[in-house]
Amino acid sequence: MNISARNVLEGTVKEVKKGATTSHVLINVKGLTITASITNEAVDELGLKAGLKVQAVIKSSDVMIAVE
Amino acid sequence: MNISARNVLEGTVKEVKKGATTSHVLINVKGLTITASITNEAVDELGLKAGLKVQAVIKSSDVMIAVE
Amino acid sequence: MNISARNVLEGTVKEVKKGATTSHVLINVKGLTITASITNEAVDELGLKAGLKVQAVIKSSDVMIAVE
Amino acid sequence: MNISARNVLEGTVKEVKKGATTSHVLINVKGLTITASITNEAVDELGLKAGLKVQAVIKSSDVMIAVE
Amino acid sequence: MNISARNVLEGTVKEVKKGATTSHVLINVKGLTITASITNEAVDELGLKAGLKVQAVIKSSDVMIAVE
Amino acid sequence: MNISARNVLEGTVKEVKKGATTSHVLINVKGLTITASITNEAVDELGLKAGLKVQAVIKSSDVMIAVE
Repeated sequence: MNISARNVLEGTVKEVKKGATTSHVLINVKGLTITASITNEAVDELGLKAGLKVQAVIKSSDVMIAVE
Repeated sequence: MNISARNVLEGTVKEVKKGATTSHVLINVKGLTITASITNEAVDELGLKAGLKVQAVIKSSDVMIAVE
Repeated sequence: MNISARNVLEGTVKEVKKGATTSHVLINVKGLTITASITNEAVDELGLKAGLKVQAVIKSSDVMIAVE
Repeated sequence: MNISARNVLEGTVKEVKKGATTSHVLINVKGLTITASITNEAVDELGLKAGLKVQAVIKSSDVMIAVE
Repeated sequence: MNISARNVLEGTVKEVKKGATTSHVLINVKGLTITASITNEAVDELGLKAGLKVQAVIKSSDVMIAVE
Repeated sequence: MNISARNVLEGTVKEVKKGATTSHVLINVKGLTITASITNEAVDELGLKAGLKVQAVIKSSDVMIAVE
């Protein structure tokens, strides 16, 4: 599957923190930690757990830029 | 300034593509290219141009996860 | 590829309206028209044009609910 | 009320799953299930429950496109 | 129409800047200027122009918090 | 830090409602209440609590417009 989202980053799941309905998934991308907030249902369906190879997918209209 | 967004990635602007109202800014983050779609006004106000050190800022609720 | 986004809707491209940097793509999903605002670059890379079978992908945190 | 969001889909609530602060609401739209992740407060204020006629509202900049 | 979005702010359109496909609409909310980036189509359909009373609608999951 | 997001609103935290993984933070901006849905982690890291001066940050592509 190809997706229109411009940012598809290869990484590995570091940790899954499950909440009541929403999970936070930490992904290691080239030594950076990317946090994704997704549904528990998605975590279960994709079988997300530490060590799994995944892609972080981010639409370009959701990226902001900051300058010090 | 500290921000609640969990993903603040250090990088360098590679290219700015200006449109009629919306620009696409390509940022080099550890060899990865991150694309941000932001207003022309923000590009001008922040003085974004190739070579400038910036941060890509992404809220965790805007990150999805894909598995091959 | 499986994605964490809960909403993956099968459809067919009806029309692609290209702008300077941003395109609007109309997708027929079961007789409903879904509009996606994506980069021109994604339109080109995916070869989007009227008649192509596609999926509209929407993260559940981007869906609101209205009641009359 | 008219809204700028291009995607306003008529449907019926199938199920409301309440979490600690965030609910997941499943909406039947022409046989498709749309999932919305919204605040518990909004669920209470709108009186959302199975069977209620609602609209799923999605901004076009939050729609991505995938191609197999 | 009631909407699940927690932030519905009463204001008045200050200016509409049309682009090729995307417009930027500036809204005066209690002396603050709120910028909305929406489709040209929505601008036309809602008849947006300076002086019109409108509401800025923002989902709470799209609000970040910064601390100096 | 300057950020590309067009909407940076000065305010004061009114209330923090913590959930299992996601908090809702109410911010008083010129008498308006803005609700932000952010991670518990961000709440802790920024030390958010009633009375703290903060900024609500919203990307213009996340603002919709409604007309009665």
